[in-house]
Amino acid sequence: MFKSAIFNLQEASRDQVQEFLNSFDTVLSDCDGVLWINNNAIPGSAEAMNYFRKLGKKIFYVTNNSTKTRSEFAIKAQQLGFIAEPEEILSTAYLVAHYLKGIGFRKKVYLIGSSGIADELKAVGIRHIGIGPDNVKPDFKSMTTAELDPEVGAVVVGFDEHVSYPKFMKAASYLANEECLFVATNTDERFPKSSSIIIPGTGTLVRAVETCSERKALVLGKPNDYVRKFLESFGFDPTRTLMIGDRCNTDIEFGIRCGFQTLLVKTGVTSEKDLERMRIERRPPVPDVILPKLGDILNLTSS
Amino acid sequence: MFKSAIFNLQEASRDQVQEFLNSFDTVLSDCDGVLWINNNAIPGSAEAMNYFRKLGKKIFYVTNNSTKTRSEFAIKAQQLGFIAEPEEILSTAYLVAHYLKGIGFRKKVYLIGSSGIADELKAVGIRHIGIGPDNVKPDFKSMTTAELDPEVGAVVVGFDEHVSYPKFMKAASYLANEECLFVATNTDERFPKSSSIIIPGTGTLVRAVETCSERKALVLGKPNDYVRKFLESFGFDPTRTLMIGDRCNTDIEFGIRCGFQTLLVKTGVTSEKDLERMRIERRPPVPDVILPKLGDILNLTSS
Repeated sequence: MFKSAIFNLQEASRDQVQEFLNSFDTVLSDCDGVLWINNNAIPGSAEAMNYFRKLGKKIFYVTNNSTKTRSEFAIKAQQLGFIAEPEEILSTAYLVAHYLKGIGFRKKVYLIGSSGIADELKAVGIRHIGIGPDNVKPDFKSMTTAELDPEVGAVVVGFDEHVSYPKFMKAASYLANEECLFVATNTDERFPKSSSIIIPGTGTLVRAVETCSERKALVLGKPNDYVRKFLESFGFDPTRTLMIGDRCNTDIEFGIRCGFQTLLVKTGVTSEKDLERMRIERRPPVPDVILPKLGDILNLTSS
Repeated sequence: MFKSAIFNLQEASRDQVQEFLNSFDTVLSDCDGVLWINNNAIPGSAEAMNYFRKLGKKIFYVTNNSTKTRSEFAIKAQQLGFIAEPEEILSTAYLVAHYLKGIGFRKKVYLIGSSGIADELKAVGIRHIGIGPDNVKPDFKSMTTAELDPEVGAVVVGFDEHVSYPKFMKAASYLANEECLFVATNTDERFPKSSSIIIPGTGTLVRAVETCSERKALVLGKPNDYVRKFLESFGFDPTRTLMIGDRCNTDIEFGIRCGFQTLLVKTGVTSEKDLERMRIERRPPVPDVILPKLGDILNLTSS
């Protein structure tokens, strides 16, 4: 029923809603734009996630956001009313550390990123340099005479509020060595909007470094393979899994690639207008089910 | 003779070199990587350009570099031994001002760029904001509460050593208004190398802003149409024009699009290895003629 077309759950009967709730055992939810925006919970989202848990569903928070460790995300979620344990958080900061540890990486990481990735790397014993403002002046003379660290064997690009010309210069210079790995957390173009201001996403920095390095990054976040492979190790049933997101080109695409059901909420990046355009142009990925906001599910159930 | 394959001018006879020199009346030369690298003249380049002038050729310096005004480029060229007048310089800083003036633009420019573009804009009476370090702190709270200038009607992206997250945020936020123009000087990935350090080119910033704005820039520099249109107003004969460059994907591509002869020198971005790969893969654009460095032409002539 929910696979053939976009189904507005608000137009469903109580029986159909119940059938939907019975159709999955595992819930994966994106965070920014679904559960919260910046530090504000989206009303009803915590109650909805906690309700899924009460129904016995297994919960994972799957975020492309790389600014926090798993523990920090769990604390943020708890503070906003969500029941959450660090083990239930799948953030790209953690994925980077998990990936590099998994391949036996022993050199140093040049990190365009923040403390979230730095702390996750530290937790698995991987050395890193680069976080915080760069102290090389951005003029040509200072940049062309900057020193590179010969121990660097990977460039990792995540969200970095201190990004600068010297950081792009260093990333490109390290990546000129073909043996240097190039890993990115995600390619999200923007953060979900909370005002007329658009906050660029990590994809902005990844495309910049790809341009000056003339290389393509291995991207670990949604919708890419790595998250799927990581989740597969938990052995759950994809056909009984629901992916909830606010972005068609990451969350919903990821859910479709993994064979999950997909639920799009309209509290984040993909708008009703975007969705309408995609439907007219028959342009995937479109979700199975939609809701204005996640908390609306509570009004549709009989419990 | 020079159109059918890549011809190494060093392997030509004196007669063939003379025939080559007789085959053009106008010389367009790129600057970075052909004439100089940073502030150092490439040996022999000034003598070669001045020799072309002595032969009666019309000279233009055509650079994607946006850091200087035409007058500043002329002074730099003169200091490095080149005969050059401001009117012979076609830099992207000048092209931006020429373009906006040509379409009757009367609003304000948000400029990711440097004083070169700023001064050229000022010279044609166009207001701008944005150069130098941005004073918005790069944290989420400061960025989401930043003020936008309602008079901005265009975002221009050129080389900006002070690029930062708040600058990307502002560019994306202005460009959310579909009526706001989006103009870029050029999409060069890198500057020519003078050491193991790679200095990212303006293309790095353009791709970043294109990503977070989810729009495509109108690019004025080589190899795009605008330079050709601008040059056409001079009424010279494309079939008797030589384009000299160090980059296949900008200079040589531009020359081919315009129907010029093309000469690649190997003192800049495109290396012998790159060229060999392009020849094997039959991947255009390849030049008509090559020389190790521009000054080598002097050793091949009988004068």
